[in-house]
Amino acid sequence: MSSRHNGYAPDDLNDIIPRTQFWRMMVLNDPISVEDARAKILLSLIPLSTERVNLDDAYQRVLAKDIVSSFDFPIYRTSSMDGYAVRRVDIRTASHDHPVQLDVIEEIPAGIQPQKEILPGQCARIMTGALVPNSADAVVPVEWTGAEVITGDDLVNQVDIYQPAPEGAFIRPTGQDIKAGETLVQTGTALEPHHLALLATVGTNEITAYRVPRVAIISSGSELITPGQPLQPGKIYNANAYGIKGLVNKYHCEPLDLGIATDDPGEILSCFDRAVAFQADLIISSAGVSVGGFDFIRPLLEQHGTLEFWRVNMRPGKPLAYGSYRSIPVVGLPGNPVSAFIDFLVFVVPALEHLKGNKGYKRAYQRGTLTETVESDGRESYFRVVSWIDDGQLKCKLTGHQGSGNIYSLVQANALLIVPSGVKSLPAGSNVELWMLE
Amino acid sequence: MSSRHNGYAPDDLNDIIPRTQFWRMMVLNDPISVEDARAKILLSLIPLSTERVNLDDAYQRVLAKDIVSSFDFPIYRTSSMDGYAVRRVDIRTASHDHPVQLDVIEEIPAGIQPQKEILPGQCARIMTGALVPNSADAVVPVEWTGAEVITGDDLVNQVDIYQPAPEGAFIRPTGQDIKAGETLVQTGTALEPHHLALLATVGTNEITAYRVPRVAIISSGSELITPGQPLQPGKIYNANAYGIKGLVNKYHCEPLDLGIATDDPGEILSCFDRAVAFQADLIISSAGVSVGGFDFIRPLLEQHGTLEFWRVNMRPGKPLAYGSYRSIPVVGLPGNPVSAFIDFLVFVVPALEHLKGNKGYKRAYQRGTLTETVESDGRESYFRVVSWIDDGQLKCKLTGHQGSGNIYSLVQANALLIVPSGVKSLPAGSNVELWMLE
Repeated sequence: MSSRHNGYAPDDLNDIIPRTQFWRMMVLNDPISVEDARAKILLSLIPLSTERVNLDDAYQRVLAKDIVSSFDFPIYRTSSMDGYAVRRVDIRTASHDHPVQLDVIEEIPAGIQPQKEILPGQCARIMTGALVPNSADAVVPVEWTGAEVITGDDLVNQVDIYQPAPEGAFIRPTGQDIKAGETLVQTGTALEPHHLALLATVGTNEITAYRVPRVAIISSGSELITPGQPLQPGKIYNANAYGIKGLVNKYHCEPLDLGIATDDPGEILSCFDRAVAFQADLIISSAGVSVGGFDFIRPLLEQHGTLEFWRVNMRPGKPLAYGSYRSIPVVGLPGNPVSAFIDFLVFVVPALEHLKGNKGYKRAYQRGTLTETVESDGRESYFRVVSWIDDGQLKCKLTGHQGSGNIYSLVQANALLIVPSGVKSLPAGSNVELWMLE
Repeated sequence: MSSRHNGYAPDDLNDIIPRTQFWRMMVLNDPISVEDARAKILLSLIPLSTERVNLDDAYQRVLAKDIVSSFDFPIYRTSSMDGYAVRRVDIRTASHDHPVQLDVIEEIPAGIQPQKEILPGQCARIMTGALVPNSADAVVPVEWTGAEVITGDDLVNQVDIYQPAPEGAFIRPTGQDIKAGETLVQTGTALEPHHLALLATVGTNEITAYRVPRVAIISSGSELITPGQPLQPGKIYNANAYGIKGLVNKYHCEPLDLGIATDDPGEILSCFDRAVAFQADLIISSAGVSVGGFDFIRPLLEQHGTLEFWRVNMRPGKPLAYGSYRSIPVVGLPGNPVSAFIDFLVFVVPALEHLKGNKGYKRAYQRGTLTETVESDGRESYFRVVSWIDDGQLKCKLTGHQGSGNIYSLVQANALLIVPSGVKSLPAGSNVELWMLE
């Protein structure tokens, strides 16, 4: 036998049988359900601490304090059109055949206080967004008027108005959109661009947000080689670190790639301790193999933390471990890239959103029609499918070979077909649940 | 009259009439269609130059060169289960009542070359992902075996096999997923996490990608105040810069906030020249007002670039300008935050994706059922709606007041209802096109 198990499973023959028995137990033990696994993870986590964040840096930060408006918005009566601020009484008889001519006494651009009172027979040229003078009770859009002319000797512009205006026409009243004291954005919201515009609208330039989770990524396995290095016999390239880093970025967290740890207890310990030193909020280890690699991480968690579970009843993604190391939560993802990817979506994403304090996270589900028969094995299963709209209906079919090492079929997929636990066959034409990936 | 138009529209009375006539022309001119506007923008743009990018930094970068695999994958025959590598001929009679006992001659972890040939009556303990010895023609999963024991004096572990295995069982053949020479990811693809994992799988650590567009953001308007500053009479907070910056981030481009330019020709010129100095790939100006503010940008484009159009037949978002300044494309967004947001989605996003070289961009459309009657005015219209799944059907209703200044109703929306040009009413129950925002 090889000497690679030194430190955990001594190599002399007396210990080989107990070790293979543990291995059997690991492979054969009853896995917990997807639902129980996710509940265990979420129950063990609490949202991170909070900090003040400038609005410039607030995209995708999660609010830890409600945003309440301190004033009505619009703050002022403003015009919603380019046109003329008028007194309605002056133009009540206006028509195309008998226009009313008004003197244009000033121009009111946005952001400028009107200087003059509009007296009978007068109006003010007004721009969209500009303050409506108190003396005006309607805005007549340019479309209802003629070109300005100068007819008299006093060099005052005049404009023909072609129709009367209803009360308050084209005036946005104060407080129409937002009332003082109203909660605009709630705690637990991940800020999208439109939230940032709303916060700026009410003058907010700093928010209270949860910290961004720092995620340490450890690739474990002597068989792994970093892309760009020459391939050696029996080795494979480390795909998971790159997929996981991409996912951590996609979900707006901070990845810390701690590199590859070979199957050596000291090297793995040192990787985990670097994650502690970096104050990681979550450690993701990705094992080179489903059971063998886990031999090295299991005792670490048992000695210096906890081991909650190490098998989930799903396909792919069964060899998922969860526990903690020196109080930092640890997710042990399978080595197969597709299994790792699906476990990340099913378990790690909700964990990260929970750490972030995000209350609005939900999967992008859609219903669609399956165009072929799909056989499952009774476990909760996630099949890679391509979906498309056909005659207004969402349809889907498998992307081909569904092996858990086949990352290529994941690249070709745009959705996952979720086959519930207990279902062994879905006939063509079934209405199914799709988890959209894009 | 105010002196704010100095430089473009001199203030003496002789010029007031021509200026108001231009203003009328601007407001009343025939806007171009949404389709024509988008086509004009896209025709004027070409993808940016390319550069080499490390795989570590490649998330959401767009490939400028196909990724072709240089080898078959899997490279080796590997096991897809934890179990035993066997010679099928040895176990063809195996059953639960009459198991076949084999000697376990070695353990093969992933990444380790098998050391021994499997002879008749022998097998090797094998881990998921490990190399299958040439002498084996199947893998028997642990689930089909008994616990290992030592029965003889030679101290060799033995295992009971409970059932025969089909040809090639649980062996992933070489080249099953990927063939050498196959194009894995095409030029024009924005790299998602699963692409990164696939690229790493085939050993790629560097890609050729289009440059990330640098987007200069200019907020123009004397009425604008930066959030966090005290509000002054007649002024409003600059909401657009924050919404636009958020959108530029969301679409994985690089924002350069050039701040607020008051309605002063020199200040606006200086802002545009800073964008040139920063080598911006696109300039987005957001006007404080729909026509007034544009007075200051129009001559700049006419003198030092081009002005393609300045009105689009849509609602909201009509006051959209497009042109160039010193060969840099310029989008002039409306001042109303909702108009600016919708114009960004409809026009700026396709422009950015085109600059990025992204060939896969498409809107996230779904079909849904309208639960109330919606009146439109015949222009292509984008209504803010909230959509939800009810009994497996996507339904939607308006978020309330649809004024183009009302960013709050955009925050409450999760989709835009697109009412095509020429349609004036959509009755409750209509099957409509929804553009999903989340």
